[in-house]
Amino acid sequence: MTYCVAVKLQAGMVFLSDSRTHAGIDQISTFRKMIVYENPGDRFMVLLSAGNLSISQSIRELLQTEQLHDPEGGEPITIWNARSMFDAARVLGSAVRHVYERDGEALRRSGIEFNASLIFGGQIRGEGMRLFQVYSPGNFIEATAETPFFQIGESKYGKPVLDRLLTPETPLAEATKCLLISMDSTLKSNLSVGLPLDLAVYEVDRFSSDQVVCIDEHNAYFHALRGAWSAKLREAFDQLPAPEWSIAGELAAPSPRHRALRKITHPRDRLI
Amino acid sequence: MTYCVAVKLQAGMVFLSDSRTHAGIDQISTFRKMIVYENPGDRFMVLLSAGNLSISQSIRELLQTEQLHDPEGGEPITIWNARSMFDAARVLGSAVRHVYERDGEALRRSGIEFNASLIFGGQIRGEGMRLFQVYSPGNFIEATAETPFFQIGESKYGKPVLDRLLTPETPLAEATKCLLISMDSTLKSNLSVGLPLDLAVYEVDRFSSDQVVCIDEHNAYFHALRGAWSAKLREAFDQLPAPEWSIAGELAAPSPRHRALRKITHPRDRLI
Repeated sequence: MTYCVAVKLQAGMVFLSDSRTHAGIDQISTFRKMIVYENPGDRFMVLLSAGNLSISQSIRELLQTEQLHDPEGGEPITIWNARSMFDAARVLGSAVRHVYERDGEALRRSGIEFNASLIFGGQIRGEGMRLFQVYSPGNFIEATAETPFFQIGESKYGKPVLDRLLTPETPLAEATKCLLISMDSTLKSNLSVGLPLDLAVYEVDRFSSDQVVCIDEHNAYFHALRGAWSAKLREAFDQLPAPEWSIAGELAAPSPRHRALRKITHPRDRLI
Repeated sequence: MTYCVAVKLQAGMVFLSDSRTHAGIDQISTFRKMIVYENPGDRFMVLLSAGNLSISQSIRELLQTEQLHDPEGGEPITIWNARSMFDAARVLGSAVRHVYERDGEALRRSGIEFNASLIFGGQIRGEGMRLFQVYSPGNFIEATAETPFFQIGESKYGKPVLDRLLTPETPLAEATKCLLISMDSTLKSNLSVGLPLDLAVYEVDRFSSDQVVCIDEHNAYFHALRGAWSAKLREAFDQLPAPEWSIAGELAAPSPRHRALRKITHPRDRLI
């Protein structure tokens, strides 16, 4: 499996992916799931991919040369000359459809569903940053202020911390911490997600980034972050109020609406 | 969907379930998913159920009268006279199989998989506490010191906090807090899990419990716990070290093993 997550903030964007791929429990390998496209001063784009590896590798290969017809009669549209991220996402959708046309039927004959799950975001000079999630049929949705982040792959373990802490106003450094912690929770609870990680941080209106890094078990910052989070979580937990079962205790106080379960004490007790 | 979780500690057991059931997004109802069986001084058992509601209700109904043949020629074995939790779990497995025999084929014809997912635990006088997870075919596994908890339903959101904080040595009150926080994370991130909750806490060798409570939106303790956890998590997060991108920064320091991603800067750039 895979875990990738990306967020669009007012201050910029953060992209994070793991690198574990497996086909069965005894075929585990490392494949990087992030690609950074950059034409400094003009555009900065990042693609994250989950799902069947042969499909996502094909999509990435085709995306380099994929072209859309320009209805205004100009040059064919590619990710390198598209005037908007929306058009660039359409080019990506088209690449997904081309891979489907090539492989979909043969995969189906082998009982394999055509599944591709992609996150694609960045900024092209002339418009603001944009972040898309692209599905197997090549259609896509865009992140908004209400839903500033997208996740693909094993997304559930790491979602609560994002739900709690991320808003569009979150500063870049804080969002970077938050995504790394979301990844840490996923790494701890699911073996199919693994190091190294790829992290890319983009500052709005820069059209390039020098904050692209690979984080493996030797990364001192990630090591310190995981340790500190674990310890501070424990501290926070220890400070929570303990449940009180006394009749005056708040936990056991009867609710005006819901009664406690009646116990079943005999084979002939009715359940309802 | 559903989220149920149970843990077996040295000090006792804690069981927690939500109560939301839905068949499509416009058919959402409240059904309690916990049943407490108690013969004070002799046995205390709790059943938690997830999956198709018609199946789990049938299982619970049948379980009241289900009997297994006693190879030693004694009375037929029921959950009320079983000498061990293992035998009681076998009775439950048998009830699951009877529901399958009755409904499985008709469900399959309607394209509905026979899915039942159960947690069953407690203590019968004469042996220690035991905790089982029972599957659709009626087979089951037992919790051990290495894996003291079981979850059914929407289990992923709330798993990281259990992985981090629960061990068999955890005191009962602490485990109760921990399960409630695991439920809180799930409630926050997944609409298909909802209040009220049923909570049962069992102290080892008591063979009964007066700590069975229904927690709804009026419960002052749960309300305070959720608020405190949210605030303390935020505090803990704010105290974590910020990522440093300077060349001397630990985050960006190159690893001896993994290089950072090469950026793709041109349509003819090779990807690999």
